[in-house]
Amino acid sequence: MSIQESVKEVKAASVVLAAVETERKNSALRAIQEALLERKQEIIKANNKDLERSEKEKLDPPLLKRLKFQEDKIQGVVDGIESLIQLKDPVGETLQSTAIDEDLELYKVSCPIGVIGVIFESRPDALVQISTLCLKSGNGVLLKGGSEAKETNRILFEIIRQAAEEAEIPKGWIQLMETRDDVNVMLKMDEDIDLIIPRGSNDFVKYIMDHSNIPVLGHADGICHLYIDGEAEVEMALSIAVDSKTQYVSVCNATETLLIDRKIAKELLPSLRDRLKEKDVTIVGDEEVAAVIDVDETAGEQDWKTEYLDYKIAIKTVDGLEEAIEHINTYGSGHTDAIVTTNKSKVQKFMDLVDSGNVFWNCSTRFSDGYRYGFGAEVGISTNKIHARGPVGLDGLLIYKYKMIGHGNIVDDYESGKKTYRHRPLNKSFKL
Amino acid sequence: MSIQESVKEVKAASVVLAAVETERKNSALRAIQEALLERKQEIIKANNKDLERSEKEKLDPPLLKRLKFQEDKIQGVVDGIESLIQLKDPVGETLQSTAIDEDLELYKVSCPIGVIGVIFESRPDALVQISTLCLKSGNGVLLKGGSEAKETNRILFEIIRQAAEEAEIPKGWIQLMETRDDVNVMLKMDEDIDLIIPRGSNDFVKYIMDHSNIPVLGHADGICHLYIDGEAEVEMALSIAVDSKTQYVSVCNATETLLIDRKIAKELLPSLRDRLKEKDVTIVGDEEVAAVIDVDETAGEQDWKTEYLDYKIAIKTVDGLEEAIEHINTYGSGHTDAIVTTNKSKVQKFMDLVDSGNVFWNCSTRFSDGYRYGFGAEVGISTNKIHARGPVGLDGLLIYKYKMIGHGNIVDDYESGKKTYRHRPLNKSFKL
Repeated sequence: MSIQESVKEVKAASVVLAAVETERKNSALRAIQEALLERKQEIIKANNKDLERSEKEKLDPPLLKRLKFQEDKIQGVVDGIESLIQLKDPVGETLQSTAIDEDLELYKVSCPIGVIGVIFESRPDALVQISTLCLKSGNGVLLKGGSEAKETNRILFEIIRQAAEEAEIPKGWIQLMETRDDVNVMLKMDEDIDLIIPRGSNDFVKYIMDHSNIPVLGHADGICHLYIDGEAEVEMALSIAVDSKTQYVSVCNATETLLIDRKIAKELLPSLRDRLKEKDVTIVGDEEVAAVIDVDETAGEQDWKTEYLDYKIAIKTVDGLEEAIEHINTYGSGHTDAIVTTNKSKVQKFMDLVDSGNVFWNCSTRFSDGYRYGFGAEVGISTNKIHARGPVGLDGLLIYKYKMIGHGNIVDDYESGKKTYRHRPLNKSFKL
Repeated sequence: MSIQESVKEVKAASVVLAAVETERKNSALRAIQEALLERKQEIIKANNKDLERSEKEKLDPPLLKRLKFQEDKIQGVVDGIESLIQLKDPVGETLQSTAIDEDLELYKVSCPIGVIGVIFESRPDALVQISTLCLKSGNGVLLKGGSEAKETNRILFEIIRQAAEEAEIPKGWIQLMETRDDVNVMLKMDEDIDLIIPRGSNDFVKYIMDHSNIPVLGHADGICHLYIDGEAEVEMALSIAVDSKTQYVSVCNATETLLIDRKIAKELLPSLRDRLKEKDVTIVGDEEVAAVIDVDETAGEQDWKTEYLDYKIAIKTVDGLEEAIEHINTYGSGHTDAIVTTNKSKVQKFMDLVDSGNVFWNCSTRFSDGYRYGFGAEVGISTNKIHARGPVGLDGLLIYKYKMIGHGNIVDDYESGKKTYRHRPLNKSFKL
């Protein structure tokens, strides 16, 4: 089957899947759980092939760790599916209801988006999470995983596809793509694909935006800031700075630039340096910082724009809150930015004026995450300013349609003045 | 000032405007109302210039009617602003609140999108509606109106800009563009513009999608269907068919294709023909239709894809509900589609499986409209499947940000097991 045909098949299946009842979707999820456990040995065997090949190809150890998908991670995704089964079906919820007239009712009802294309890194657990999220939310899905995981992806896809179809989920709702060429074909099919979620490098996300008219949900950069105000508690500021930078350096919600109010710089910097050096963090500081402590590199404008994703931090002194906000809105990526201060009116201003999806007071930027937010399952983090922003859970895979129930009503009666609109809230769920 | 500079100015102003309190926004709206009334003569004079030039250039009478902006229409937009003042401020609403831990609170709070670019037809009332909607929702706006209305647009823009700035709305929040070249520059500025709303021809909307990475909210086509089922009440079906087609033919929610269940075709078609002929509708029918009544043209596949926007209708016989749904999902534009039947299970299936923003039962497709839905103000109608679908009111100009309030919380405490997440709903509004 060509990619075009696969996409058309997903599209056709997605229309039917949109109307599949909760029970059948949950049975399919349960069948997937069982099949993953039953066929564990096949999965491990496929994953070993990927691991052996990738070791030979000298894949970086952190990437090998992500690629590894054995006993514990299989149990992890099975547990994840359990949480998903427990979640309320997000489809078919009445979001608004209005009596347009006594015999004309309007309902705004949640429904799946349709067909989602997801391109993800070499992490087999992502394949299971994404496809089961799409199933629960009634969306068809096109998957393209990292090539290092191709054997594992193939068997996981096959297990999920087969288990879902046996549970009477419309055939063709899920498809696996294996090459960049497939992705390029997909990017042109804006009539059939409703949303692309690319998880991967910055350049890759930009490439997709440049080569497709399909809406894209995702984030290009994660240049997060921590601003330590002159009225901050020093010990709290130090602890949050160290956590924001070093708790896990290779993720998008780690802080890349620390902005320090000039008023507190001399007091704070020596201890900050000690605490960061305990974790072997390379310090890139501006001239004022360098006048107070030893820095490893002098910071230039390029540093304010760089996502290090490493044990490395840029530190800049600023002349208070306004300059911090200005800096964040100029160089930040609209992801997550935090302030440490004891002054509430400064917090108010920071939260109002920093144009980011997540604005925090007195806590680590590392909290910016769907699991920590309590969403259960996460699709990804969005720096979009439409549809979904910040960590995106099941909600991000939904839209709505308007359903109107009439009794022969025609517009001419209202335009001619024979009848008049009422526009009264109904506060009831859609039911025929 | 270059267009790039204008866009940067709107961007900077939009950040401040996002935090402007309700009272100030409403005072500005009131100041705009007053200025429009005070400077009525200037507006009428400018509009007369546009009308005279356009008459010389032989602009079509319906377009001249839209261009005309005098006493009554000025009063109309002033009344519209009054409704907008009465609407609740949509910014700053808490959409969700969660205790992540006893001392760590997360709030999802509505906020403006940022900078909206709107390209609209030669209808001066649209300029006033769009800019006041953006002001109320706290968004910066770039306006580009049809060139036939350029004198009227210029004076209206000047009045709104000046009145808003005198009411202390951040300078630069609104900008007027006058050429296609300006638009082309704008389309490339995806770093500074968050959403484009194009109102205009199908080709123009497609042109924008092809030339920009900025998300687009709008509709390309309005190919709406009315399906008359074999179990329909004949008199109701006839009345809805005539209204859906002829109540106002040049709009996107008028029905273009009528699908008739074969079982009822012979009974329905002769009366339908009479009723449509009373309104001088050209009938384009398939062979089965032509076997029952005289048709003006024989329908071919091209007709199923055509938005006539005229007193012209395509009629096709279908073999019941399934074929109707299949036809709509194949040829429709996802805008508005209606079924006439007395059978509820058929309605259920139709509403579930027709993949359109608006699905109606026993009423005219012409109801698909923000005013009729009771939204007060309308931005436009969207056939997008993300962010906003169907008629879009103020809501479509909003997104949200997550605000987190901590007390020195760090992620390491939770990952190390020292603390645990609670994820308890808070059910309270954001307050520092």
